[in-house]
Amino acid sequence: MILKNGSVTSVNGFKAAGNAVGLKKIKKDMAIIISEVPSVSAGCFTTNLVKAAPVLWDMEHIGNMISGIAVNSGNANACTGKQGLKDAEDTAAHLASLIGCEKENVLVCSTGVIGVNLDMDKIKNGIDITYPLVNDSEESGLLAAEAIMTTDTYAKHISAEIEIGGKKVTIGGIAKGCGMINPNMATMLCFITTDCAITSEMLDKALKECVADTFNMITVDGDTSTNDTVLVLANGLAQNKEISSEGNDYDAFKEALFAINRELAIKCVDDGEGATKLMEVTVTGAVTKADARKIASSVTSSNLFKAALFGEDANWGRVLCAMGYSGGAFDPMGVTIHFRSDSGSIMLMDNGTPIVFDEELASRILSEHKIYVDITLSEGSEAATAWGCDLTYDYVKINGDYRS
Amino acid sequence: MILKNGSVTSVNGFKAAGNAVGLKKIKKDMAIIISEVPSVSAGCFTTNLVKAAPVLWDMEHIGNMISGIAVNSGNANACTGKQGLKDAEDTAAHLASLIGCEKENVLVCSTGVIGVNLDMDKIKNGIDITYPLVNDSEESGLLAAEAIMTTDTYAKHISAEIEIGGKKVTIGGIAKGCGMINPNMATMLCFITTDCAITSEMLDKALKECVADTFNMITVDGDTSTNDTVLVLANGLAQNKEISSEGNDYDAFKEALFAINRELAIKCVDDGEGATKLMEVTVTGAVTKADARKIASSVTSSNLFKAALFGEDANWGRVLCAMGYSGGAFDPMGVTIHFRSDSGSIMLMDNGTPIVFDEELASRILSEHKIYVDITLSEGSEAATAWGCDLTYDYVKINGDYRS
Repeated sequence: MILKNGSVTSVNGFKAAGNAVGLKKIKKDMAIIISEVPSVSAGCFTTNLVKAAPVLWDMEHIGNMISGIAVNSGNANACTGKQGLKDAEDTAAHLASLIGCEKENVLVCSTGVIGVNLDMDKIKNGIDITYPLVNDSEESGLLAAEAIMTTDTYAKHISAEIEIGGKKVTIGGIAKGCGMINPNMATMLCFITTDCAITSEMLDKALKECVADTFNMITVDGDTSTNDTVLVLANGLAQNKEISSEGNDYDAFKEALFAINRELAIKCVDDGEGATKLMEVTVTGAVTKADARKIASSVTSSNLFKAALFGEDANWGRVLCAMGYSGGAFDPMGVTIHFRSDSGSIMLMDNGTPIVFDEELASRILSEHKIYVDITLSEGSEAATAWGCDLTYDYVKINGDYRS
Repeated sequence: MILKNGSVTSVNGFKAAGNAVGLKKIKKDMAIIISEVPSVSAGCFTTNLVKAAPVLWDMEHIGNMISGIAVNSGNANACTGKQGLKDAEDTAAHLASLIGCEKENVLVCSTGVIGVNLDMDKIKNGIDITYPLVNDSEESGLLAAEAIMTTDTYAKHISAEIEIGGKKVTIGGIAKGCGMINPNMATMLCFITTDCAITSEMLDKALKECVADTFNMITVDGDTSTNDTVLVLANGLAQNKEISSEGNDYDAFKEALFAINRELAIKCVDDGEGATKLMEVTVTGAVTKADARKIASSVTSSNLFKAALFGEDANWGRVLCAMGYSGGAFDPMGVTIHFRSDSGSIMLMDNGTPIVFDEELASRILSEHKIYVDITLSEGSEAATAWGCDLTYDYVKINGDYRS
């Protein structure tokens, strides 16, 4: 597998555009992704009980052959009642009319202000002026990545090339999120395209398995928005033997899809609001995968540990405490904890016993940007990794200062 | 029921002392509570998998007739292995020897630094010089409340008088917590005394029912420490007809115990590190009590809403979002939200529809210290209340600044 700096347009048969249509004051606020031939589709959506209108539309139509996706930023079309549902449908219908397909073959996503209905004149005009701009260039993919941004400080995109059954298969992706925009809802959006030939069922299975260990394992502040969405389209143009069951081809595809998801998810956390540190917490030796996930996620979500990270304080006690209330099972007497970074590695707990450690070395290690917290349990052989960031003054400022 | 400003010594048959024995640099760090006649006991302990040595000792001996409690601050005796377990036992044994009872009739609590063994010379000497100081004065109760403090900015204590079966019954309590001390573990400790005559079984039942809606419904930062403990001792000296089953007497006792717990729990949150606001979130109209609790607790735990509170931003969207990922069941279309304070009340959502609201009025309401968030659901008739505080720069400073 080769990872590259591409995006959704790196894949044969997909075009995109990113444009400013007036939903935001100045910045780009509309992206369109087009599949030249109808694509097999799969998606994962927020588990928040409160779901935005576009999420409800997508949940109803995912699994259909999809020809286009319309994405707007600046307005989440959430808590917008029946009008919101109609607007999501009309957005899909409008793009469908330009493409020449049915509205049921178009997905929509929104991110931004909640509780405010979409300005449908701007949306429709926006689609009218953006659709002609779609093309398969690298640049267009990056403009689309930019147009879906809200508080992101940089566009997030990646691509991968693999070989499946002797055929070259490409996967590309763009993402945005997470952390809050004042005073609106942050949303994690991710769009993945591929020319792999794969059935709807296997694509869905692969996506869910990947998301479980990537997008579902990142946190900036513990809040899950009303709009979180991951969509993947597969158009089959690679002409590999269609993946219709588990096996070597499925594994190879899933491995690449996982790498794409993982890199985009990490970029989302790394750009978390106010964040100065990225933490990667890996738990090994757990009884079950679920336990490992709960424990790792609890550490990345702990305000106390996030604050300690900001202060570059090797606070293993807060790690242990977060593990202890995670709901995951483990014996505290069998816990080993290391902190690690480019500057080195340090053991802080050895099978339940705290280690008197070199504070200076710990300081050097924690002065780096990316910090690895390696937790070894003594229960079994399951593992999980979670990503998070530190809790900083800037996070409070961005999210507490009403007028900032 | 009459609430008063008393404490554990307001109750006939209980004595206390608070003293400085050298575990902390200057401040008081040891409290002793004595029951002149052996008391029926009940307790609630942290659900964190990682439990401090004193918690393990107390869990083993709660339910015994108890004659004394030794509490130290400055060291949590957590993550201290076998030595820690022995030290907790020896602490109990040492106080027991002065009282003239068995160690199994003494409970111990600790709060402070973790991973460092207790200085047992200081502990034993400390008990030796503090035990003679115990008396039943009001002042001693307050000194005990002070001695258990860590980052608290004020001592927390309260008492109540009720009538049960024609007899006057008194309940008194002291508490400390919550939020973090840099770089140690914050702990919520609460000690309650009463002269009520009640069986061990009913006392335990009453305590658990009260804690479920008080101490278990407060959060400063979402972390649950390794040392959280609530202990209640009942010595029967009120000579009411012993409460041995449910009924009017049980209800009267439980109502008073609940008031004590509730007031102390609220004080703990109100003194939360860095906090400038106290929020009381009440959910009504839920299907089950569990749903109501999950939903209310999710709102008080939401970093995004806590930050909004700090910024005095009427961000109903973040309330709804936190409700939505709480795991509690509700129909978003049936949600009504009000914010309320001494300055007035404002509706922000009416049965799922956002209300265009008076920003100035909202600002005035949110400028107060105590903010009520009233959430009405349309599912059933169950309710729950949770308490929390805002997320501030000071919280980050206190918990992130290693040297502060």
